[in-house]
Amino acid sequence: MAENTALPLVVLAEQFAKLPGIGMKTAQRLAYHMISRPEKDVEAFADALLKAKRTIHACRCCQNLTDGDLCPICSDETRDHNIICVVEAPKDVVAFERTNEYKGVYHVLHGVISPLDGVMPEQLKIKELLSRLQSGNVRELIMATNPTVEGDATAMYLAQLIKPLGVTVSRLAFGLPVGGVLEYADEVTLYRALENRNKM
Amino acid sequence: MAENTALPLVVLAEQFAKLPGIGMKTAQRLAYHMISRPEKDVEAFADALLKAKRTIHACRCCQNLTDGDLCPICSDETRDHNIICVVEAPKDVVAFERTNEYKGVYHVLHGVISPLDGVMPEQLKIKELLSRLQSGNVRELIMATNPTVEGDATAMYLAQLIKPLGVTVSRLAFGLPVGGVLEYADEVTLYRALENRNKM
Repeated sequence: MAENTALPLVVLAEQFAKLPGIGMKTAQRLAYHMISRPEKDVEAFADALLKAKRTIHACRCCQNLTDGDLCPICSDETRDHNIICVVEAPKDVVAFERTNEYKGVYHVLHGVISPLDGVMPEQLKIKELLSRLQSGNVRELIMATNPTVEGDATAMYLAQLIKPLGVTVSRLAFGLPVGGVLEYADEVTLYRALENRNKM
Repeated sequence: MAENTALPLVVLAEQFAKLPGIGMKTAQRLAYHMISRPEKDVEAFADALLKAKRTIHACRCCQNLTDGDLCPICSDETRDHNIICVVEAPKDVVAFERTNEYKGVYHVLHGVISPLDGVMPEQLKIKELLSRLQSGNVRELIMATNPTVEGDATAMYLAQLIKPLGVTVSRLAFGLPVGGVLEYADEVTLYRALENRNKM
């Protein structure tokens, strides 16, 4: 912003610019937008920020984000607590819930093993996952980390760790995305779709 | 967001989704991002929002946004206070200041005349502009509203209002943008560029 702009506006724009995917130009636009809104709207925004940060923490059981002690999924008696879907991040839980098909529970790792970024297994919520398996009731663990190098490696690492405990470990299927066009599928996806072909 | 997401997160995402150009998906991503940041960062953001809204108001003279009584441009003695550039919004001032060429002062209308959107001349800062002209020292008024139907109409309206006061009224030049390609210029721009051609 130009040096003739009022300082509090510059500070606000810089705060917006810290958000992922928001550049300085958009940040300025957002800053101007905010001060054109009524004071009570701005207060509601500031309040939502603080309240979210202060009340949200990891669920005692699945490590998903929640404002209670247990998250709504872990405390839901109608769900199958013997199938655990292991995901990287809370937003992956939201994605699975949108399918309305999965009735088991989750475990959020809060990251993937990535030595290049300095993320080692100890920094993930693996200890918490192992302690959940100690009850002995868990039937299946579904590895739902992303189909990336780190996601695959994390799934592999966990599978080797958990299989000796006698729990079935599975991995999400890879193949053509529904509604996708074969022509535009990358080679790895196409190869996986061919390899995992199903009898009709 | 799914119904199983913690409420304060949903509230925060909805606040982000109210920002212009930010959809629900990006808003969710931003909400997750915010709660992954340290508490003091979130407090700084909330504080910047409130401070900007509470301390910023219109400059007594030019109506640009400022946190003082007069904005830095209006209180700058080295600038030519007898040339006023009339713009629609504070961000237009920032754009002109970036050119580092304009040494006059500004007047921010805070909108354009647009009867379809219910914006009539009385709602713009036209009264304030006329009272600035009463000093009798103003030499020239540059109409720098946007080259849109409403911007042109507003410039025209102001010109008819102000010319009788003996003040020179000019309008920004329209033509090809520098660095642009003739082939991609729209017809109106090309027509204006042709009409306003300059002798070489």
